Amino acid sequence: MGEYELLSKIKSPHDVKKLNGEQLENLCTEIREKLVETVSVNGGHLSPNLGVVELTVALERSFNLPKDSIVWDVGHQAYTHKLLTGRYEQFDTIRKKGGISGFPKRAESKYDDFNTGHSSTSISAAYGIARAKHLMGDQSYTVAVIGDGSFTGGLAFEGMNNSGRFNKNFIVVLNDNKMSISPNVGALSRYLTTVRIQPWYMRVKKITEKILSHIPLVGKPLKRFLQGGKSKLKNLVYKNTLFDCFGFTYLGPIDGHNIDELENAFECAKKVNSPVLVHVVTKKGKGYQPAEDNPGGFHGIGQFDIDSGEPLSSHRGFSAEFGKTMCELAEDDKKICAITAAMSGGTGLTEFSKLYKERFFDVGIAEEHAVTFGCGLAAKGMRPVFAVYSTFLQRAYDQLLHDAALGKLHLVIGVDRSGIVGDDGETHQGVFDVSILNTIPNTTIFSPAYFDGMRKSLSTAIYICDSLAVVRYPRGGELYRPDDFGEENLSYDVYGNPNCKNLLITYGRLFSYACKAKETLAKQGIEICILKLCRIKPIDENAVDFAAAFENVWFFEEGIKNGGIARNFSDLLCCTSFCGDYHIKAINDKFVKQMSVSEALHELKLDNDGMVNTITKNLKEKN
Amino acid sequence: MGEYELLSKIKSPHDVKKLNGEQLENLCTEIREKLVETVSVNGGHLSPNLGVVELTVALERSFNLPKDSIVWDVGHQAYTHKLLTGRYEQFDTIRKKGGISGFPKRAESKYDDFNTGHSSTSISAAYGIARAKHLMGDQSYTVAVIGDGSFTGGLAFEGMNNSGRFNKNFIVVLNDNKMSISPNVGALSRYLTTVRIQPWYMRVKKITEKILSHIPLVGKPLKRFLQGGKSKLKNLVYKNTLFDCFGFTYLGPIDGHNIDELENAFECAKKVNSPVLVHVVTKKGKGYQPAEDNPGGFHGIGQFDIDSGEPLSSHRGFSAEFGKTMCELAEDDKKICAITAAMSGGTGLTEFSKLYKERFFDVGIAEEHAVTFGCGLAAKGMRPVFAVYSTFLQRAYDQLLHDAALGKLHLVIGVDRSGIVGDDGETHQGVFDVSILNTIPNTTIFSPAYFDGMRKSLSTAIYICDSLAVVRYPRGGELYRPDDFGEENLSYDVYGNPNCKNLLITYGRLFSYACKAKETLAKQGIEICILKLCRIKPIDENAVDFAAAFENVWFFEEGIKNGGIARNFSDLLCCTSFCGDYHIKAINDKFVKQMSVSEALHELKLDNDGMVNTITKNLKEKN
Repeated sequence: MGEYELLSKIKSPHDVKKLNGEQLENLCTEIREKLVETVSVNGGHLSPNLGVVELTVALERSFNLPKDSIVWDVGHQAYTHKLLTGRYEQFDTIRKKGGISGFPKRAESKYDDFNTGHSSTSISAAYGIARAKHLMGDQSYTVAVIGDGSFTGGLAFEGMNNSGRFNKNFIVVLNDNKMSISPNVGALSRYLTTVRIQPWYMRVKKITEKILSHIPLVGKPLKRFLQGGKSKLKNLVYKNTLFDCFGFTYLGPIDGHNIDELENAFECAKKVNSPVLVHVVTKKGKGYQPAEDNPGGFHGIGQFDIDSGEPLSSHRGFSAEFGKTMCELAEDDKKICAITAAMSGGTGLTEFSKLYKERFFDVGIAEEHAVTFGCGLAAKGMRPVFAVYSTFLQRAYDQLLHDAALGKLHLVIGVDRSGIVGDDGETHQGVFDVSILNTIPNTTIFSPAYFDGMRKSLSTAIYICDSLAVVRYPRGGELYRPDDFGEENLSYDVYGNPNCKNLLITYGRLFSYACKAKETLAKQGIEICILKLCRIKPIDENAVDFAAAFENVWFFEEGIKNGGIARNFSDLLCCTSFCGDYHIKAINDKFVKQMSVSEALHELKLDNDGMVNTITKNLKEKN
Repeated sequence: MGEYELLSKIKSPHDVKKLNGEQLENLCTEIREKLVETVSVNGGHLSPNLGVVELTVALERSFNLPKDSIVWDVGHQAYTHKLLTGRYEQFDTIRKKGGISGFPKRAESKYDDFNTGHSSTSISAAYGIARAKHLMGDQSYTVAVIGDGSFTGGLAFEGMNNSGRFNKNFIVVLNDNKMSISPNVGALSRYLTTVRIQPWYMRVKKITEKILSHIPLVGKPLKRFLQGGKSKLKNLVYKNTLFDCFGFTYLGPIDGHNIDELENAFECAKKVNSPVLVHVVTKKGKGYQPAEDNPGGFHGIGQFDIDSGEPLSSHRGFSAEFGKTMCELAEDDKKICAITAAMSGGTGLTEFSKLYKERFFDVGIAEEHAVTFGCGLAAKGMRPVFAVYSTFLQRAYDQLLHDAALGKLHLVIGVDRSGIVGDDGETHQGVFDVSILNTIPNTTIFSPAYFDGMRKSLSTAIYICDSLAVVRYPRGGELYRPDDFGEENLSYDVYGNPNCKNLLITYGRLFSYACKAKETLAKQGIEICILKLCRIKPIDENAVDFAAAFENVWFFEEGIKNGGIARNFSDLLCCTSFCGDYHIKAINDKFVKQMSVSEALHELKLDNDGMVNTITKNLKEKN
């Protein structure tokens, strides 16, 4: 790969300002090479970053960072920003344990004005920053950079509604690449299409002016009309986009790969005495052919071969298995519907979307709507299944509680990426879903360890449950399964000698680690039995009774301790004759930083080593 | 009050259809009388219901219920709907224990198509219902009725974005009364004002047509322009509202108190081959002068005197005390900002909004934005305090977790109406906030019992805490405070003999009930000590050590058990030398139905009786 002659010398945005046109072009080429090179090794978000190289360069040149502020929506497109703000040297560590984050972090750089990770927060956050500056008499600019995908999230509209007409140096840059992760959907997306293609009212303006300059006066009334008409038509031209309705002045569409045009637009934007929306059109994946051809596939990606664009490893994961099961169920049952919030590929629903187009709903990045919409489907007898990543489901707590559970509407949620997800770090860990779902009455939660359990759970959630029902499964595929472990039971399984003294309880993929721990402990002469839960809410009373007979019980949970299942189990155990010791190992009131899944589970003492060490330590302390 | 000659005979919408114009007018008068009469006794939502009497009558006449579906956003305006759909006889029981709900409930009537209670869900739910019908070949209509206040919630936009252009009998009625609870704010509100006052483009249209009909032809180019212009102008007239951008056909503005005009509009709406938005202008509080004069005050209200409009009881509550404290703190500290989501009155911030206008932010019904916006303020060094009802804070879980706690931004939340709220029932109980906030790292939670504790907590949250800090307080005012109980401590207080065998632990207003229980038990010869927590996250280790010495410990908690503080305490206690019995009494995995606060606490066994009975029963079982 390249020498990064220009890029390696950029220590701050100040250095970017010194470059001439040709140098800027070369810089952009170097940045793209660096992005492809690094992501091909570290994994990460590629196509969103390739799309905003020129936009970022133009922003760093047009604004006076860090005095002016930029909030990057979601933040997965801030790699170029990191490269240009003093983090070139550390860039190889991106998304690695101890390295720089794949998202903006205030703690990482004075150039990162707000931590992001989830969609649609930038306008709200930037508006808060702008109002604070205004109160302090600070005249600097505040910019939110938000994709058209993120714009479908309701929070973005709440931000627009609240900030419209705040005329103090507040600029929203709409990065329109026609995609969120999947191609964009919904009315806004269609609307932007009409705006992008030089809309008809621009033509009206041109025709009007041409004619007015040619014809003679034809009497007072017409003159009045035309003059009045002209100014009114002018209003139409500049004041009739969706964004103007919210009090924003619209500038655009701007070619997002032309630095000159971008800088001109930002200079204009700075001068307007109202909040401004700059509509920038970019190409997701720009400059790396495999990503241009398949921007969705290169949105977030693991290691890949640069020449071919092929991923270096691929294995059959839970998402694929979930999608396959959905297709099978839907073939025989016309009432099954699938819902995704802009994640059809990630959640394994691509095939479903082709086979059952009428019953497939991509609602855009709008998890709250996805839940309430699903409840509407359920209210009329459909069997809706909403597939969503654990971390994004956090957005829909109130809708799950009220619209689904309180109304006893039969909505099924497929919670993908539950548990530790790895390199995306703190904002993407799926470690809160159990605790928040656990607070919701009328709710059933399954957390299987293997594909067969997932399939059975899903089918049960759809056909046996009658209110909110959740099936959660981890990122990736199946882990270790002992040969002598049979089919997964939906309620619980006992693996090992039920008459020994030591019981390890767990659920989900930690069962695989527990089985390895059991083997290791056996070699040390410690016998343990494993109680593997599949349905974690409500907990089967027989499972509790079973556990009550043991002298030492450990509950290992891949989730936050407060509100988790281990505590529920403890509570239930207290109502039995249990008089042994009960130990909980879960994530204790902290966020889990970026590192690989295995590194994280190791650090949390939730892998086989951690289990073995905890158990031997506790036993030693007792004796 | 009236005899309700017409109203009392209405058994279903079918009967409403039989009435003539004069009868309809009389019916509306009777409905208003019934509404005022009932709410003056039962309390409830008055002004929203007075505003939609004619709108509801027109809807029940224009549509074929229950085949056609209506989803009432929030649902607090569905009283007339209830009166006209067979619930006149039960109407006196509204919001009472065992009575009909103040909100639509599917379980209550086949005419209630969707349970509501929180804002902005109607478009999403109705769209789900409409899609389900479409899949089943059902051609009936689906209508969402949503206020302009609810329209500021992002979920409404997510619904609009997703449903735009679904041309299968889908109608959104925008009930525009210029208010949510407080007068409406934000860009959308200003936008609707321009639409309401016969907007300029309507004038353009009229002028154009008038002139075109008078002037002679002046040559080909002009003719082409004007003709072209005319059709283009026509597009402007009908296709350039905000709603058209989303693919909705806009009809309006319609006089919401003219049944004829409303029915005409709905007939038009039925014929349009696209989703339709019918913009209806109503007057909140219409027909009852005190409510017209003070629609915010009569939004949700307790018992009142019909003639004067004066509330029958009023006491100094926590909200007022919170507002007063905020004003005092803000006087000396220019960095303190207050945020409300359309609840300035309810949260006690009216005075603040007048005194510190620049630092007061009413963001509309937009709790997620409120949190993220507040984090933006905090990122630049302001000291933002967001005052919100517990139940509505549920909307902002993800923002609290990510934008505040993960980014360690110092946002303070004043959680009003925490705990049981009473007559509004299941959707409004503040019993989930502790459990969900308890899952969030870097978070401090105070739950004082009295005003002095609330003031101290607030000040500490603002000046000592450095990340997300929460102060929660109940609806209403202070309850019983023993004469010999001193000042509230911020961490915990011990009240009673620390050397007795029995310890009752609690927090918040349950402390008052506990003190009464202590007195009752003393008369029965049972001595208890009370451990009163104020800071419930993190729990003070000294409090745990103190509890460890007791033989019998009870934790009474006015919140959902899963994820609650009682379980945390139990966990901590297990790490001490504690070898006594530990009992938890909290809300066990269920929703709490409508009834008065004291009825609910009694039923939940969380009042003094409940505490006494639980303690004596447990002690008896033990001996």
